[in-house]
Amino acid sequence: MVCAALLLFAGSTVAAEKQVSPNGIAIYPDYMSWKVVAPSYREDKGHIRIITGNEVAVAALRAGRKPLPDGSVLAKVAWKTEKHPNFPVATVPGAFAQVEFMVKDAKKYKDTGGWGFARFVGNDLKPYGKDASFVGECFGCHIPVAGNDYLFTKIVKTP
Amino acid sequence: MVCAALLLFAGSTVAAEKQVSPNGIAIYPDYMSWKVVAPSYREDKGHIRIITGNEVAVAALRAGRKPLPDGSVLAKVAWKTEKHPNFPVATVPGAFAQVEFMVKDAKKYKDTGGWGFARFVGNDLKPYGKDASFVGECFGCHIPVAGNDYLFTKIVKTP
Repeated sequence: MVCAALLLFAGSTVAAEKQVSPNGIAIYPDYMSWKVVAPSYREDKGHIRIITGNEVAVAALRAGRKPLPDGSVLAKVAWKTEKHPNFPVATVPGAFAQVEFMVKDAKKYKDTGGWGFARFVGNDLKPYGKDASFVGECFGCHIPVAGNDYLFTKIVKTP
Repeated sequence: MVCAALLLFAGSTVAAEKQVSPNGIAIYPDYMSWKVVAPSYREDKGHIRIITGNEVAVAALRAGRKPLPDGSVLAKVAWKTEKHPNFPVATVPGAFAQVEFMVKDAKKYKDTGGWGFARFVGNDLKPYGKDASFVGECFGCHIPVAGNDYLFTKIVKTP
């Protein structure tokens, strides 16, 4: 039982580490160990999501610093939604859908608001995009939130 | 700016540390630094949630160990939902609603499945329940998921 779990975990990490987006951004395999920035629910896609951030990103967001400093990385992780079998008013995560990253480097990614984008889809974490031009699609969608450092997500508040 | 953020943070921590549930469970002030177990969305209440867990709980959940060992603590954090102002198909967290804890101690809480329950409501984190009998309400709702160690939440899977 423990061995099976370890093998599964090892296999997952190897799969994740292999993947690189066409613009050169490799998957960050520890994104599920980062702190929470926020949850979200996309009713149009039937996705439920969490956004996590590395230490640099979360520290800046908690302090209200914007734009985020170089080295900030955010992950948006999406699962297909399901109704909870014992409690159908609750919508909960089912199968993994994708994980997306935004990586801050003001110089390297100056043409896209200082952010590098990457998306890895499905259980094989297939990198999104035929070539590096796919980022035009990502960035285009984020232009309406330029005033929030191109981020749709705001960090949750707790008392 | 930095000073204001620090004062706000200090104030929050003090407020959180003061609160104790009628059954003696004190708030765990670091629950937003714990790892993610899952997001969820309650359409009936208009709440969006994240469930986090301390190291003991997350290690057990990731390994598929059930029942969870003593020392496991889970936090369910709820915010009122809002439509994203720039992107209304996305439902996102607004005002903080409440945080709930489940604390595993098989002996201490043997009458309620080995779990102690606590809820802290609103921005003043008011402990829920007039006296310790409030846990009957919590436990009653969790009986249908006795087969999952009384947990509605399952940990999310990622490849």
